[in-house]
Amino acid sequence: MAVQILDSSLRDGAQGEGISFSLRDKLNIYSALDRFGIELIEAGNPFSNPKDLEFFRRINEGHYNAKAVAFGSTVRKGLKACEDENLAALLKAQTEYVSIFGKAWKLHVECILGVSPEENLRMIADSIDFLVKNHRKVIFDAEHFFDGYKADSEYALQVLATAEKAGASVICLCDTNGGTFPEDIKKAVKAADKAISVKLGIHCHNDNGCAVANTLAAYKAGAEHIQGTFTGFGERCGNAALSTVIADIQLKYGDRILSDKKLAMLTDTARYISEVANVSLPVTTPYIGSGAFSHKAGMHADGVAKNPATFEHIRPEAVGNERRYLLSEVSGRAAILSAIRRFDDSLDKNSPQTIAITKKLKELEQTGFRFEAAAASFDMMVLRELGRFVPHFDIDYFKIISSRIEEGVIEKATALIKIRVGDSHEITADEGSGPVNAIDKALRKALEVFYPQLRKMHLLDYKVRVIGSGSSTAAVTRVLIASTDGDNVWTTVGVSEDIISASVQALTDSIEYMLNMGIA
Amino acid sequence: MAVQILDSSLRDGAQGEGISFSLRDKLNIYSALDRFGIELIEAGNPFSNPKDLEFFRRINEGHYNAKAVAFGSTVRKGLKACEDENLAALLKAQTEYVSIFGKAWKLHVECILGVSPEENLRMIADSIDFLVKNHRKVIFDAEHFFDGYKADSEYALQVLATAEKAGASVICLCDTNGGTFPEDIKKAVKAADKAISVKLGIHCHNDNGCAVANTLAAYKAGAEHIQGTFTGFGERCGNAALSTVIADIQLKYGDRILSDKKLAMLTDTARYISEVANVSLPVTTPYIGSGAFSHKAGMHADGVAKNPATFEHIRPEAVGNERRYLLSEVSGRAAILSAIRRFDDSLDKNSPQTIAITKKLKELEQTGFRFEAAAASFDMMVLRELGRFVPHFDIDYFKIISSRIEEGVIEKATALIKIRVGDSHEITADEGSGPVNAIDKALRKALEVFYPQLRKMHLLDYKVRVIGSGSSTAAVTRVLIASTDGDNVWTTVGVSEDIISASVQALTDSIEYMLNMGIA
Repeated sequence: MAVQILDSSLRDGAQGEGISFSLRDKLNIYSALDRFGIELIEAGNPFSNPKDLEFFRRINEGHYNAKAVAFGSTVRKGLKACEDENLAALLKAQTEYVSIFGKAWKLHVECILGVSPEENLRMIADSIDFLVKNHRKVIFDAEHFFDGYKADSEYALQVLATAEKAGASVICLCDTNGGTFPEDIKKAVKAADKAISVKLGIHCHNDNGCAVANTLAAYKAGAEHIQGTFTGFGERCGNAALSTVIADIQLKYGDRILSDKKLAMLTDTARYISEVANVSLPVTTPYIGSGAFSHKAGMHADGVAKNPATFEHIRPEAVGNERRYLLSEVSGRAAILSAIRRFDDSLDKNSPQTIAITKKLKELEQTGFRFEAAAASFDMMVLRELGRFVPHFDIDYFKIISSRIEEGVIEKATALIKIRVGDSHEITADEGSGPVNAIDKALRKALEVFYPQLRKMHLLDYKVRVIGSGSSTAAVTRVLIASTDGDNVWTTVGVSEDIISASVQALTDSIEYMLNMGIA
Repeated sequence: MAVQILDSSLRDGAQGEGISFSLRDKLNIYSALDRFGIELIEAGNPFSNPKDLEFFRRINEGHYNAKAVAFGSTVRKGLKACEDENLAALLKAQTEYVSIFGKAWKLHVECILGVSPEENLRMIADSIDFLVKNHRKVIFDAEHFFDGYKADSEYALQVLATAEKAGASVICLCDTNGGTFPEDIKKAVKAADKAISVKLGIHCHNDNGCAVANTLAAYKAGAEHIQGTFTGFGERCGNAALSTVIADIQLKYGDRILSDKKLAMLTDTARYISEVANVSLPVTTPYIGSGAFSHKAGMHADGVAKNPATFEHIRPEAVGNERRYLLSEVSGRAAILSAIRRFDDSLDKNSPQTIAITKKLKELEQTGFRFEAAAASFDMMVLRELGRFVPHFDIDYFKIISSRIEEGVIEKATALIKIRVGDSHEITADEGSGPVNAIDKALRKALEVFYPQLRKMHLLDYKVRVIGSGSSTAAVTRVLIASTDGDNVWTTVGVSEDIISASVQALTDSIEYMLNMGIA
């Protein structure tokens, strides 16, 4: 059975606590989902957030296989669809698909909308009709369908029939409050499937811990369109995690959604999205967590060594993850070989260089490095281990002073630095907004004396992540820097207890990457 | 239906990545589970970990309602039960209940144990018989039962019949690899229920994201004993989270397990266990996560204010959690009002103070503040606007020096600070791992001279986010700090281009919150 996947990380996911995306974050996540092979990406609400129109403009100009979906609501109370700015904003997004939510639970119709059940049906029909007449494919999200079905099944099904008659392409059944169980999901989806013939979708929240099982129950009962967020972040307890649902359906049920090659990108895609969203992925996350295939108990580790099927329900490579033995030093070398081969395709997985790089990678990961979102730092590490790295400069020392001199006034931070290039030295200083900006500016100023091409390079993004739980201001800090020369974008990482040291590492890698790869 | 709960946080949970318990940790978690009302606590393997004997001795001397369960395996290959040190160690724990695992999957019998199917049955029977003769109640964990049932249902059921005949009190069906789905769980539990008459249990892992749904499916199919770990930590993807399962059964199915008063301790118990285990609890964790009842979308927040049932599947108080309105640009004035009213319940949404605070909130959000995860800073802002804030100190100045003195070596950052409290001054200095840690330590050192109660306060978490698109090292930085005095947890925020300034703002708010709210 072919199932259509809609990822809502950028829309419903953005309702999650602590989630706030910049335009660049949204474009990065959109590209990652597109590369992975997601068909529909629900990406913003152009009415409640006018900044999203700029995002849709950028998406429409790009070359993606994924289709962007603009999200909004049915017409507001007392208005005709053609008068409603919310629906007009949806059209402005210029997407082939739009999704709108409408109420399928009488409690909401009466208590939240404050309209009669008949008026609610009129609002749904009018909105869908308007969008269809404007040549949009409409995904109708039947909000609170399962609670509505429980309270008044006749009315809930009437809502679906109304949406079908008005021309919706997909009718998505939503467990908006996340409190329904698989057996009830199954029953209600079957009833909906009997009542209407348009493609049915499912959208589950995880408030009772069953979002994944509910999504699968709906799929088994006939849903052919699945909504969720890639790693499960979203409002309250989050949404069904598509990373789990997709792997379950393809690897366990045996129903193909993506090529094997795409599915093997599952772990990297999930980790990349988590990094951009600045959400920590629990080590226990099914399929994609760093602990998903880790074996600690000696007996389990021994069993897996004899026959992986004894303690693993799937092969970790199928989702691009890897087996780890937490108490022993056995490594999965083949995984990184393909990255290394870009520099030397004579290497195989038993070459001493491959073994050394694998060992180095493990060591760095132990101290908090993550290369999923920092490929340029990985490349620099590989070049160093292969003896092909050409250092372009050394930092002899630096000193940064941050201070507040009088009540409420922070002085600019100042940095002085001495660098060495071959036999020459350069000492200089600069000031900046904060210590990291000051040292960044001073370092570039010193280097541009020797490498004028660095003037073309600038930073696109600077992210800081404090890692490890039970942490304090002395916890380990991971800095990710995205740089560009106008044409290329590359990302580097630094890790240290000291944010300044972590930043200098990432800056150094970024500059060395540009100079070593001869980008400019 | 009365269901028996067995918590294995201290045994199977200890197999989780990054989990390692001291004796004191184990006693603390045991006490917390006992207070909450867990009936059986599987707490260690006295054979593989002899230190656990000391733990059982301490438990047996204490006054607990919970019963400790010692864990081990069936007799080892080629031995009689009475000769096996593993079973002897189990008896030494002096517990009323013991649990032992045996193989229910032929693949394991042949490939891991290396014995014949008949010999495996003999080992199971002999082990249980030995323990029963030594007056123990035996919980038999049928390891890999579901995979075994799929591969050879006859043999899997024969294993159960053997355990029943030998005198097991409970036979627990284990999905050891965590790859089974609810429909298969249901089928196999029903078959087991038909084949034997002793009490059936369920033990699920979360490798396919269905551990909770699987546990519930088994319960519905007749299991009367449920195993899991309290918050779900455990090997690979973890175990079924009892905090979710218990709340689902009692609040959603309506089958009572605990008194209402005990259930209202769910959130505190889970958070306490997470702290002791040093595992961060995702904000999205069902029922107990800090975001489980948080509302961000303006419409959801408005709906909940009108009628909580519209967007909440249960009352948060039932599990000791609380509703929160994430105070963001999208939340309406109603959400803000409910937060303000905790300080002055005479205010309504048209009061000048409410309007002033709403305006201030918007202004701060424009500059990058987010209060959704920083309620304590929001409270301080409200107190300031209401003229009720009492400043406890001022910072006259500070100076921080970060430096690298020679190749690769970062000196500790040093900070000096002068603060004023009333007419008194204090100048002091400290050093730290990085500039933020240095100023944090110096500030506390100066303040503790005046406010010794601050010694009880420490940081739980420190998060940094760089905000704004097209950003660089000069971009705006948002710092979130979680602090605790051992009993309460509060979170504050600071925003600045300078990470040091942002950190000092958040630290200042955190300290003022403790002093203004009279927490200590």
